[in-house]
Amino acid sequence: MTMKKLLISLTLACMTSGLLADEGMWQPHQLPTIEKQLKKAGLKLDPSDLTDLTGFPMGAIVSLGGCTASFVSDKGLVVTNHHCAYGSIQYNSTEDNNLLENGFLAKKFSEELAAAPGSRIYVTESITNVSNQISSGLNDKMTGNERYQHIDSMSKKLVAECESDKAYRCSVVNFHGGLEYYLFKQLTIRDVRLVHAPAKSIGKYGGDIDNWMWPRHTGDYAFYRAYVGKDGKPADFSEENVPYEPAHHLKVNAKGVDEGDYIMVLGYPGSTNRYRTASEVIHTFTESYPLSKELMGSMIDNIKNTSKEGSDARIKYESMLAGLANYEKNRGSMIESYNKGTTQERKVKLNQDLRKWVNDKNSRQEKYGDAIEKLDELVKQSQKTSKRDTLLGYMGYASQMMSTASRLHRLAVEKQKDDMDRETGYQERDMNRFTQSMKRINRRYDPKVEQSMVINLMSRYAQLPENQRVDAIDRFFGIDDGFNQDQLKAKLATMYGKTQLDKEDVRLEWMNKSVEDFEKSNDPFIKYAVATFDARQKLEKEEKELSGQFNSVRPKYMEAIIAYNKSMNLPVYADANSTLRITYGNVKGYAPVDGMRAVPFTTLEGITEKDTGVWPFNSPEKQLKLIEDKKYGEFYDKKVGSVPVNYLGTLDITGGNSGSPTLNNKAELVGLVFDGVYESIIGDWDYDPSLNRSIHVDSRYMLWVMKYVDGADNLIDEMDIVD
Amino acid sequence: MTMKKLLISLTLACMTSGLLADEGMWQPHQLPTIEKQLKKAGLKLDPSDLTDLTGFPMGAIVSLGGCTASFVSDKGLVVTNHHCAYGSIQYNSTEDNNLLENGFLAKKFSEELAAAPGSRIYVTESITNVSNQISSGLNDKMTGNERYQHIDSMSKKLVAECESDKAYRCSVVNFHGGLEYYLFKQLTIRDVRLVHAPAKSIGKYGGDIDNWMWPRHTGDYAFYRAYVGKDGKPADFSEENVPYEPAHHLKVNAKGVDEGDYIMVLGYPGSTNRYRTASEVIHTFTESYPLSKELMGSMIDNIKNTSKEGSDARIKYESMLAGLANYEKNRGSMIESYNKGTTQERKVKLNQDLRKWVNDKNSRQEKYGDAIEKLDELVKQSQKTSKRDTLLGYMGYASQMMSTASRLHRLAVEKQKDDMDRETGYQERDMNRFTQSMKRINRRYDPKVEQSMVINLMSRYAQLPENQRVDAIDRFFGIDDGFNQDQLKAKLATMYGKTQLDKEDVRLEWMNKSVEDFEKSNDPFIKYAVATFDARQKLEKEEKELSGQFNSVRPKYMEAIIAYNKSMNLPVYADANSTLRITYGNVKGYAPVDGMRAVPFTTLEGITEKDTGVWPFNSPEKQLKLIEDKKYGEFYDKKVGSVPVNYLGTLDITGGNSGSPTLNNKAELVGLVFDGVYESIIGDWDYDPSLNRSIHVDSRYMLWVMKYVDGADNLIDEMDIVD
Repeated sequence: MTMKKLLISLTLACMTSGLLADEGMWQPHQLPTIEKQLKKAGLKLDPSDLTDLTGFPMGAIVSLGGCTASFVSDKGLVVTNHHCAYGSIQYNSTEDNNLLENGFLAKKFSEELAAAPGSRIYVTESITNVSNQISSGLNDKMTGNERYQHIDSMSKKLVAECESDKAYRCSVVNFHGGLEYYLFKQLTIRDVRLVHAPAKSIGKYGGDIDNWMWPRHTGDYAFYRAYVGKDGKPADFSEENVPYEPAHHLKVNAKGVDEGDYIMVLGYPGSTNRYRTASEVIHTFTESYPLSKELMGSMIDNIKNTSKEGSDARIKYESMLAGLANYEKNRGSMIESYNKGTTQERKVKLNQDLRKWVNDKNSRQEKYGDAIEKLDELVKQSQKTSKRDTLLGYMGYASQMMSTASRLHRLAVEKQKDDMDRETGYQERDMNRFTQSMKRINRRYDPKVEQSMVINLMSRYAQLPENQRVDAIDRFFGIDDGFNQDQLKAKLATMYGKTQLDKEDVRLEWMNKSVEDFEKSNDPFIKYAVATFDARQKLEKEEKELSGQFNSVRPKYMEAIIAYNKSMNLPVYADANSTLRITYGNVKGYAPVDGMRAVPFTTLEGITEKDTGVWPFNSPEKQLKLIEDKKYGEFYDKKVGSVPVNYLGTLDITGGNSGSPTLNNKAELVGLVFDGVYESIIGDWDYDPSLNRSIHVDSRYMLWVMKYVDGADNLIDEMDIVD
Repeated sequence: MTMKKLLISLTLACMTSGLLADEGMWQPHQLPTIEKQLKKAGLKLDPSDLTDLTGFPMGAIVSLGGCTASFVSDKGLVVTNHHCAYGSIQYNSTEDNNLLENGFLAKKFSEELAAAPGSRIYVTESITNVSNQISSGLNDKMTGNERYQHIDSMSKKLVAECESDKAYRCSVVNFHGGLEYYLFKQLTIRDVRLVHAPAKSIGKYGGDIDNWMWPRHTGDYAFYRAYVGKDGKPADFSEENVPYEPAHHLKVNAKGVDEGDYIMVLGYPGSTNRYRTASEVIHTFTESYPLSKELMGSMIDNIKNTSKEGSDARIKYESMLAGLANYEKNRGSMIESYNKGTTQERKVKLNQDLRKWVNDKNSRQEKYGDAIEKLDELVKQSQKTSKRDTLLGYMGYASQMMSTASRLHRLAVEKQKDDMDRETGYQERDMNRFTQSMKRINRRYDPKVEQSMVINLMSRYAQLPENQRVDAIDRFFGIDDGFNQDQLKAKLATMYGKTQLDKEDVRLEWMNKSVEDFEKSNDPFIKYAVATFDARQKLEKEEKELSGQFNSVRPKYMEAIIAYNKSMNLPVYADANSTLRITYGNVKGYAPVDGMRAVPFTTLEGITEKDTGVWPFNSPEKQLKLIEDKKYGEFYDKKVGSVPVNYLGTLDITGGNSGSPTLNNKAELVGLVFDGVYESIIGDWDYDPSLNRSIHVDSRYMLWVMKYVDGADNLIDEMDIVD
């Protein structure tokens, strides 16, 4: 839950300096540069072994898109978090056979179940530095838009070349705000099957209450299997397919870790903002996040007030509700940490120190001075309309009718162009996902609930100063001449009553219509999309212009930061960007508040302690009995006096790392990372070594449940278990 | 707050066996019998030194009646908890000079302020075993009532003899349910003055939120001074009075304690129930406490619904509200601990083991067998009407009009008898307190609020089966023929409208009227008192009969327990009964839940961490600045890296211990005990060595605040500070 990649990322696009112990999300090729630190922390492997993507252990690490996973057998068995496989477990659940409630175990290959539609396993096979290709045609005279377009089309070209083999999905990703670009080539396995998941009362024990919390007792693991065609190549689901045989897989360590032990996590962290300027940080924590938190809270109220618990409408919004509650808690924690802590003063000081260092020397001043000034100006400019941008962002998120109409119309517009010239998201390679998203809508849509959110957001939008509002939108909704909520309500009621976009077949038909068809349509939401298209295009262009301008200064700014750090002998890692990274550290507790210490391990007994018999604290009877009878088996840890359930580490992780294997100093799997503690949420902006703790499910607990509670001996036998 | 003695003690009148580490509230004379344990824990003094009440250190320990305190200078300076002096600080506060908010410091003797009316300092000078005198006339043929009366009149006689010197207040207290009786003779100092108290934002930092909680940061200390006449004898307040010069006082240690150090607390714990039978324990936790908790919750609702926050009415009920909330939390914790823990199964097993041990040998069977059976029968009998008794108890607590009328009428009845024959509470020696209580009523009474509580409780009473209800009460309120809430409301409205008992002078006049005057009165509450007198007398007699019968078997039962423990070489301490006790143990943290550890010390930094600027987390600016500037001074502790604020101990304490000095192994003051942790509340019934922790304010924090925040150098100079 926590760490699954943000669906709504409303933040834009980097400041820290003195690198702290255990801080850092390292690119594989960087590891040899931090060999000393890795060895000191306890790594037994040669760091250069970790740079080979197709070697061991990197070859065993895969992405699920938003989550991480790893191969744990030579027959394509994959382990990840329960919350990463949640959709697939849910998808296969029926009222009569509720896999979420009861758990699932395929005792043989033929019993394995197709994962939810769209499920993919991505195996990163190569990472190529394409900075020169991307940057070659850039010059300082370009407008922001020209810059943006150049980078965009160069990236698309590289991706298209890379994807000439249909077995792969490729992407060009920028690092350090555009200082470097890398091309990622990922084998894409399309036949993914569900193999095993414990009951939700183990896999999601503690539910939303324990989310981001320590002490924790969650058995957050599940197993998939990768299938390919008989030729060994990725293929769509077919009974004829065979298990994929990865070149490498991880051994599972049944003796786990001790306090202080070296651990590392290999995975795909989503997004961090460690190098933002003080002004960006202050704006985020004093304006953007408080606004977002308020909006999320009000949308939660909207949903609750318009759908009774247990009703069809509510069920459709459970997922959005969980997401909003999750991020409201997330933003709340960050604001709380920010107000309590010293982030702001340290960011301000860093900015001052950097400027001083730059100004200390003429050559530095010449090289970086302008970029630093210009960056500050751009940041101010981007902040001017941030409230409006946030509100419109949430509007698109809340109103599926508005966003669907806009996307369908945009598709018709884009289809007039050559594939390579189309906007990202509207190319042929995106059509499968596009279709999926059009199909999914009815499972998450109720007109009454949606209207209440739109009215809420539109009422706030209407309060904005006129020069921030968008004329075409104002005119369409009749709020250009003063806002009247009742009128808006009536207008929306008519629109939602009349639209046909709430029908799946209608939406799919619109995917093949022309721009003219859209312009002639009487569907109120399509009329909205057409009427506001030019205005929204204008905003998009402004955004791209700004983005291009940022791209002309942020890399220089980052160069300054890197040089400044280098002057103090400190290596710099790039902000997380959903690409493969390594973070290392140790098993270690922390002091959440004065007078209390979070110890590094929880135990089986803690499960019983929390248990109330009622979700989310309703362990299976069988498990409670085993604990009562102290049936620890071979997974007993003398030091903790029980079987360890979850443990704390100092690793630097974020959303997207979910499901990542936690490895010991020999790269054996000793757990899965699945969350961070409450106090570490602000870590996305500011890593604090005293409070930043990752939460891992212990391999011993996983094996204990599999063996004694679920009888998953077939999987234990399939894996390489080592002591 | 927490540990101040229960005002409403609705529990009646004992089971544990295997004595656990640090468990035990020892009578001074018992200490030589546990010398080995004391020495092992770290005591450097000879335990026999602690048996001399008039020697050091016992001579320095005093009671405030409900709280404990100690002499800390040869000029009668007394230290206790801020919450024990709260009433006196409040009493001396005005809108213009709010001592609660600002704190108070007398820089010289003449600036010291008279404590709240009725404030006393009791110095226990002798404890005499009077078991033989009390028990000599008892025989097995007596009825319960005869037994009760015999013990009561013997006690009164001993008290009267002892109090022939007016400087003393005496009491006979039973131990082990009547197995032993002791006569306590206490010098009673009546001129008590307030010397110093920190601001409430230090002395009560954390308020009700932190009450019973760890981590804790409360500077819960305040200073009184004892004054006596020029002849050195206790006297009423007079400017001519002089500071009392105690024979002994405690030295204050400025270097405090370390984790694991020996500590002990000398004080006056109020009441525990460690030797109750399984049936008593089960009834309490599954019936009495849940009912009490519910009643308290409903009364809180009554008060809140009938008095607006900040209104005069609400201000009058703030104290009751705080008490109800405190005990609702208390009962809630106990029920929670009981349901989670193994108290019930262990109590049942103990009862079985004891029976088995008794039955194993004929002589034991003959000696104890009958008592054990009979005790079980009596327990069952007493439980039959427990719900009714609880409801009437709360009615008396909630309705000051009903209880005042009944008490005044009872006074007239009692005055017809010789002083020695009067009921306890109605003797001449009680008249000062009686008058005080009559004067106090208007500060805590509002007719609308009281009526809502009476209606609530009466409605519940009316649901009881008819054979449990009291005819005279039913008839008086017209509920003998079916209950109608509207009728009752109307009747009560008339009564509250008409009564004159809400006037202080009227109440005081009634203190001198005859029974006939009462019988002729038209005051509706006096009519209630007269109309229900016989019925209430009957209930009282039944209760005394039962109490006398308990007295005929409980001592034998306790003898059996003591013998059983002795057979296992375990000494037995008596349940707390507001008499002087010693508990010893060590400075030690604990694990409140799996995965977390409460460390033994909190620090200055934790104050800043909690601070919100809003009560109860609004430390004085000066203090926050000192902390920010790390001005630790000589009170810095290297191991905790700051000045320690509060610490945890394994001591066995309860309500009444508040204000007790915490002493090190040389009997130097190293802190004051002021609370227990949430998980230890059930300790009154069942001490759990893993969870039972006392909370102490560190002497170093007290001295640090006194020196650096409040500038109380005069007091620091007056005390003997040792390193």
